[in-house]
This record gives sequence, structure tokens and C-alpha cells, in this order.
Amino acid sequence: MDAPAHLIRLGNLSQERLQQILELALRLKQDAAGLSLTGHTLGMLFFRGSLRTRASFETAVHQLGGHTVNLTATSDFWELEVREGTVMDGRAPEHIRDAAAVLSRYFDALAIRPAPGGRSWAADRQDAQIRSWADHADVPVINMESVLWHPLQALADLMTLRETLGELPKKRIAIVWVRSPEPASPSVVHSLLHGSLRCGMNVAVAHPPGFELDPEVLSEAHELASASGGELQTGLPLEQAVEGAHVLYARSWHSLETYGNPTLAASHRSRLTEWHVDERLMALGSEARLMHAMPIRRNLEVSDAVLDGPRSSILQQAENRLHTQKALLTTLLRD
Amino acid sequence: MDAPAHLIRLGNLSQERLQQILELALRLKQDAAGLSLTGHTLGMLFFRGSLRTRASFETAVHQLGGHTVNLTATSDFWELEVREGTVMDGRAPEHIRDAAAVLSRYFDALAIRPAPGGRSWAADRQDAQIRSWADHADVPVINMESVLWHPLQALADLMTLRETLGELPKKRIAIVWVRSPEPASPSVVHSLLHGSLRCGMNVAVAHPPGFELDPEVLSEAHELASASGGELQTGLPLEQAVEGAHVLYARSWHSLETYGNPTLAASHRSRLTEWHVDERLMALGSEARLMHAMPIRRNLEVSDAVLDGPRSSILQQAENRLHTQKALLTTLLRD
Amino acid sequence: MDAPAHLIRLGNLSQERLQQILELALRLKQDAAGLSLTGHTLGMLFFRGSLRTRASFETAVHQLGGHTVNLTATSDFWELEVREGTVMDGRAPEHIRDAAAVLSRYFDALAIRPAPGGRSWAADRQDAQIRSWADHADVPVINMESVLWHPLQALADLMTLRETLGELPKKRIAIVWVRSPEPASPSVVHSLLHGSLRCGMNVAVAHPPGFELDPEVLSEAHELASASGGELQTGLPLEQAVEGAHVLYARSWHSLETYGNPTLAASHRSRLTEWHVDERLMALGSEARLMHAMPIRRNLEVSDAVLDGPRSSILQQAENRLHTQKALLTTLLRD
Repeated sequence: MDAPAHLIRLGNLSQERLQQILELALRLKQDAAGLSLTGHTLGMLFFRGSLRTRASFETAVHQLGGHTVNLTATSDFWELEVREGTVMDGRAPEHIRDAAAVLSRYFDALAIRPAPGGRSWAADRQDAQIRSWADHADVPVINMESVLWHPLQALADLMTLRETLGELPKKRIAIVWVRSPEPASPSVVHSLLHGSLRCGMNVAVAHPPGFELDPEVLSEAHELASASGGELQTGLPLEQAVEGAHVLYARSWHSLETYGNPTLAASHRSRLTEWHVDERLMALGSEARLMHAMPIRRNLEVSDAVLDGPRSSILQQAENRLHTQKALLTTLLRD
Repeated sequence: MDAPAHLIRLGNLSQERLQQILELALRLKQDAAGLSLTGHTLGMLFFRGSLRTRASFETAVHQLGGHTVNLTATSDFWELEVREGTVMDGRAPEHIRDAAAVLSRYFDALAIRPAPGGRSWAADRQDAQIRSWADHADVPVINMESVLWHPLQALADLMTLRETLGELPKKRIAIVWVRSPEPASPSVVHSLLHGSLRCGMNVAVAHPPGFELDPEVLSEAHELASASGGELQTGLPLEQAVEGAHVLYARSWHSLETYGNPTLAASHRSRLTEWHVDERLMALGSEARLMHAMPIRRNLEVSDAVLDGPRSSILQQAENRLHTQKALLTTLLRD
Repeated sequence: MDAPAHLIRLGNLSQERLQQILELALRLKQDAAGLSLTGHTLGMLFFRGSLRTRASFETAVHQLGGHTVNLTATSDFWELEVREGTVMDGRAPEHIRDAAAVLSRYFDALAIRPAPGGRSWAADRQDAQIRSWADHADVPVINMESVLWHPLQALADLMTLRETLGELPKKRIAIVWVRSPEPASPSVVHSLLHGSLRCGMNVAVAHPPGFELDPEVLSEAHELASASGGELQTGLPLEQAVEGAHVLYARSWHSLETYGNPTLAASHRSRLTEWHVDERLMALGSEARLMHAMPIRRNLEVSDAVLDGPRSSILQQAENRLHTQKALLTTLLRD
């Protein structure tokens, strides 16, 4: 048996396959007819909360004629062990390898949202859970956001960029860190960075000192930029990154320096009051559109005026989760 | 785009539309064939528990060929902000306006069961959450019981009254407060009051002092009675309300005077031991049927003998949730 | 109306019906086409966690064209009263008899996983909850593992034994207790014991002193052995039970002596370090296969080498949950 076609990160998709999915998503947005996952059952496992991902993924499967089974760790089952070879006398009564093998007998694909440990970036960045699912599943594993990557969001983001900007090479996107009491992992930014650079965009990342992205992800990003003719600048001040940008992408992410120390991290963030998006900042761009992966803390990350004004693409982005996921599922499961 | 046809309270349905739904529900109970929500996905969001509503609503959608996506706030996602214009630096990471707008891109309708604050009736009676969903959704919002209204229960109740009593004008219904350690909001009674008065019934409400219904709801109820030729009496002693009634509808609801003060409320209720339904009380009616929206605390609210005897209509009522919801969905989504 | 065909224990199935289900399951494993539960809705109620049961049951229903409604007590609804005739002024706001009667109006069958009380075996072994559901439901109630029985697991186990061993009479199965910090109820072993003896197998049960199975279940088991020509030995030492066995079935279950006293039970178990399965033990059998109902604590109950080696049938067992449940649902609901 061939290895199943997992989607753990955008890098699992060849350039040709990525373009095929985006083209199909654009077509499906106009006319969803004629495709079918009838008789297919997709298993979704959530080890932490979700609104958009769950709603859009279930609807995507339903609209294609398939079924979903939705399992939430906290209410439906139990902790799973990830370490190989250990004597399982602790809390977890079951190993991921067994859960993955068993569920592969029932489902045609497994979509997984793992929970981060939250204590050490060096440990969390291994993405051990999603990798264990992929190692032991016999059906495609789809990453619904791990610590390191969020490929489903990146697919919707790339589709939105295509719709908004047309041809992407040399178009300018500013990814800007914004302040929030509950930052996310940098997964969304990591996947967006790789995706936009693969499409030849010029990417400027603004963030305060201490909020550098993962070094290995950045190193790969520079290689992708070289290959595609895109450009990448990171660690810019807010205004400089936004100047002349066609798209401003706001996101709050953890400092990897204070990761695992929430008290220190909160104290550090409390001084970063200027890191938010308002109309003044938007005006520095080149008729810039606002993008945000949501959930969004209004008037803290981005002002109501920007979010509810004509420059906001956030609902288009959210809707495109549906279309890109339909294209992805069709491509992964019917080829 | 026209405003979507929300169902927040029975008042959102014209008299013609209400009759149309009841007639369709009666037909669907005999023969459900020929209707279809194929390709439709209904989103259900629960901010507090449900058994009948969830089971009957999901089954209604399935029997019409559609799909449901079921999101439970406590286990699946997170708190949502309802206040407009606030700086969202508190617990809620997302605003209802964004959740409503996004989910409108995925679902064909949104059914919502909000949670009450439980501290102040003046605040809770604003029904801010369900109103915010309705304000910001682009698809029909269906109220699965807010603090103030429960229109889905009222539709099933009206259907049951029609089946039981035939023509409703001038038929007598006694709505009686009963004691329970966990009273509900008066939502079920509010919607039933308006529904039965719109159908021209004579309504007698019995409750102890301090358990008056919401004054604005009562004021509207008197207007509905005037318009339809129905009659409304409230605050009656138990026996007087039941005398000659064709239907006795039992329900426990919060005192709006001690609302938000559970200790005082419990002490107040502990003296009201005579407020329950037994065979002696039923005998005062005119071959009266017993109705109750459930869940029901046996032998506290109503005795086993009444519930399991020939006068009980509670299962018929519960079953009619299925048929009226099918009629409602068909009417809301396919017109 | 005829009484609905509940499946609370294997004993609810006649020998003819049991064989019919196993034959159908074997056929469905090869070719699932041509069967349909279209238009049927199955209600599933979980009062404790589940991974395999829920995933395989939902998929079974979907593959047959039906829908499931999935209710989890902790997150979706509330406690249910089981005592008859009581004044319900405690925590539970609803009685199982009402929930069962109402849900029978919506669903075509009810699958229930009750929670054990965990305090007294004499009380828990009454299986009061699942019996109350069966008493009050008007549709078939399917037991998804009660304190006393797990018939769905037993069906999958019998199918796996048939696939592995061919004709079952006189084949030897060793059921061996293994140590775990969280033993299960003996339900899986009780149902397997009756199922394998009905098929004429020779059954040897190994367990430490104090881990005897339920006396009434054992007494019935001896009667079944007499009727079928099978043999039953219990309380054997580990090696003696396994010697010459064709199948070794590992399971951890509670001591019924220390049931309800977790501290004493843990202390008791801590001395039983030799009760686990490794390659040395497997070698005592007659080319023995390993079976386990999962979840499994690796390297505590059974070693990695056995679980991942060629003698393991655990994934085949788990997959057979799907096929036997499809056969069962087809048989229960379409006859």
C-alpha cells in the first residue's frame, strides 16, 4: 500500500497540487455541483476548541455528500499517549498509534486538532502528536492546526489573496504582530509565510523584539523565497512593514522567548500597547486590505472601524475555508 | 438582500404563517414524504444543555434530508462577547457579530440556545444574546429558548392543543405554576401565553404572589386577547384557575422578584408546598388534559398517577416538537 | 405493539439470530452494498467516554445510509433519575422513563452507554440504568457496554474468532486478567464468556485470587457450556490457562471484592506484577493469537513486541466492530 497523502503542512503539497487545489476551490465557490464524497466518512478529533474549522469542515463534507464523526477529547474520550515504547502506567489509557490504526479502519480520512503542551517551545515545535497520528494512520491525516502549522488556514488565505490581488508574484503582504491577552502559536503565520513566498510574494513581517518566528521555519522561508523570486524581510517596525503593502495580515502570536512562562509573557506584552491595527495604520498601505484568521479581539487587535469598513476581507477569508477544504478533500480522497 | 426571516418569538410569524406551519405539521405527522432539505446544513449552537430540543431538531433536519452541525459552547469552543464597541481584553476571544457573520457563510440557518446571565431580570429580559445573533446573521436565526421566549415549544404546544381540543377559540387553558428546586425562566409560558391568546383561547394563569410574569409580555398578551376575542386572567389561586379548564399546563418558573438571589428564592419556594398537580386537582377541570414541556420532576411537580394516566398529553407534546420543527424549517428555508 | 427487540446482553439473541448476524457481518466485510437504513435516525447516549464504540457505530449507520444523533451527558444534557416512584427533589431534573419515552418518538433505535455507580457491585450488577431504558423505550435499546455486559464487543470478538479459527467447537480460548491502574468492569469478559461457550469453545479463565467473575454470570456460563458441549475452567494460574490455547484474550477487570474501595484495590493490584502478556507467555499457546478489546496500556498489559508482532488480532477485532454492528442494525431495524 502506498503511504497515505497526509496534509501536515503546506510542504506536503507539490506546487502543481497546490495550484490545482486553489483552482478547484475558485471553481467550487461558483458552482459546487457534480462532486461527491457519498459513502465517505471523515473522522474529526479535537483536542482543543474550534468554531470556524469545525463548522466549515463539517459543512464541506456534507455539501460533498459525505458524513463526519466528531470526537472531542475533553467530553467524548480520554488522553492519548504519544511517547513510543513507554510503560503506560500513567493517565493515558491508550496510545495514539492504536487510536490511529483503529480509526483508519472506520474512517476515510482523519482530521486532527492537537493540543499544545504550552511549556517548552523546543518540545512543542516537534509537533509530536500530529506526527504520531500521521505515522500510524493508514488513511490521510489532515492537520487542523498544530503548534507549528495551519495548512487549512493557509489554503483559504492564498485563495483570498488570489481573489483580492490577482496574480501574486511581487505583490506585497505585511504580516503584523498585534497584542492580545491570549496569543496563539505562530502556526497560522508559519503556514502563510511559506504559502505566500511559494507564490512569489514580497513578505514583510513586523513584530516587537522577542517575537521572532521559529528559526527553522524562517530558514526554510528564505529558501522558498530564493526559489520563487519572492522577498522576505522580518523584524520590521510596524509602520515600515505596512508601507506600500497590498494586504495587511494581523495576528497575535506567542513570544518563543517567554513561551511556557505566562506571567513573564503577560508582563512583557503589557508594554506593547502600540501594536494594533487602526485606520491610520491601514492608510500607510497601498489601498491595503485587512486579513485576519479569527477569532479576533475587537478594538484590541484591530479597531471596529477597520473590521467593519470596506477594507476588511476577514469574512471572505473565513468563507474560503469552506471552498478550499472542499477542494482539498476532493483532491485527497478521490484521486 | 432581504432581511432573513428570524424566529426569535412567535410574534415574528404572521397569523397566516403561523396557521400554515401548524397545518403543515399536522400533515407531516401523517405523511412526511415529498419534502427535502437535501444539501442544506443547519448549524445548532448550544450555550446550555438540551435533550428534547437537540434530539428533535436534528431528527427533523435528517428526516428532511439535510445535515446538522452541532456546536456545544462548553466543550467545543469559547465564550462570545455580546457588548458592541467594547475593547475585548476580557475572557471572550470572539464577538457574536463575527461568529454570526462567519457561520452565515457556512450554514443555511442558525439555531441558537443562549445561556441566561441569571443575575438580573432587567438585564436578562433584554435577550441581548439572541438579538445579537439575529442582528448579525445573514441567514435565519431560530431561537431554541432564550430567557424571554421559546417559540419552538409554543408551536408544538399549539399543535397539541389543536389535536386535543379541535377549534381553539373560547377553549379554556389553565397555566399553573408548580414548585421545583430548579425553576426555568418563564420563556415557555410567555410564548404559550401569546400563542394561545392569538388563537382566541381563554387563559387562566395560577401562581403564588411574587411569581408574576414579565410585565411587558403580559401587556402584549392583553392586547393579543383583545384582538382575538380571547380572555386572560392572571394571578389566580390554583383551584380557581383549573376549574372547568380543558387543559392544565404545569410549569415551574423563577420569581422575577427574587431572580438573581437563589438562596432567598429557595427559601421562598420552600413554603409553597401546595403548588403541584395531582389527580384531585385534575378532577376540577373539564375532562382536562395535562400538558408539560418537560423535563419534569415526578411526584414534585406532577404525580406519577397523573403523568402515567390517561389524561397525560406530555409525550404527544414532545413528539409534536418533531413535526412542527419540520414544518417550520420547510417554511423558513424553502419559501 | 410487540415489545421492541432490545440488545442488552447476548442472551437476547437466539442461537439462530446470533449465527445470522455473524454470517451477515462476514458478508458485509466483503461487500457492503445493497443495504439501507435511509431515513432512519439512531440516537446514541453516552454517560461515559467512548472512542471505538462511538466511531464504529456512527460509521456503521452512515455506511448504511442512516443518521445518528449523538448526546453526551456531561456536555449536552443532565443527570437522569432511575429510581421508580421517588419524589424527584434531588439533582436529576428528569427520569429515564420520560427520556426513553420521548426519544422513542424521535429515533428508530437507542444506543446507550450508562455510567457505573462504582460504589457497590451488588448495586451496580443490577444494571438498573440500561434496564430502565429498555423498560421504557418503545424502540430497540442497544447496550453499548453496561456494568454487566458488552454484547457489541462480544459480537466482534466472535466474528474475529470465526475468521481466525474457523469452526469454533472445542477450540481453546484463554481469558487472562492483566494488571492496569484503571481496570474496567468485567462486562467484556462476561459477554465473551457466554458467547464463546454458546459456540462450544473450551474456555480457560486465569486471574489472581479475588478477581472472580460475577457468580450469577458464571453459573449461567456453566449451563451454556453443558448445553453446547463446551468446557469452562476458571481461576487458573496464568501459564496453565494459556497452555495449548489457540487464542489468548487479555483484559483487566475490577476485583469484585474491593469494588468501591479504590485505595485498597490499588494496593492489592500493586503486588500482581506478573499478570501481563509478553512473548514468553504467548509461546505457551498453540500458535496463539492475541485478542484485546482496547483501549490497551502498552508494556503494562501487553508488551509492544506482542502487540505489534504477527500474532496480534487487535486491529481485526476493532474493525469487526464496524461489520458486526452493521449486521446487527440491519437485522434489528429492518426485519
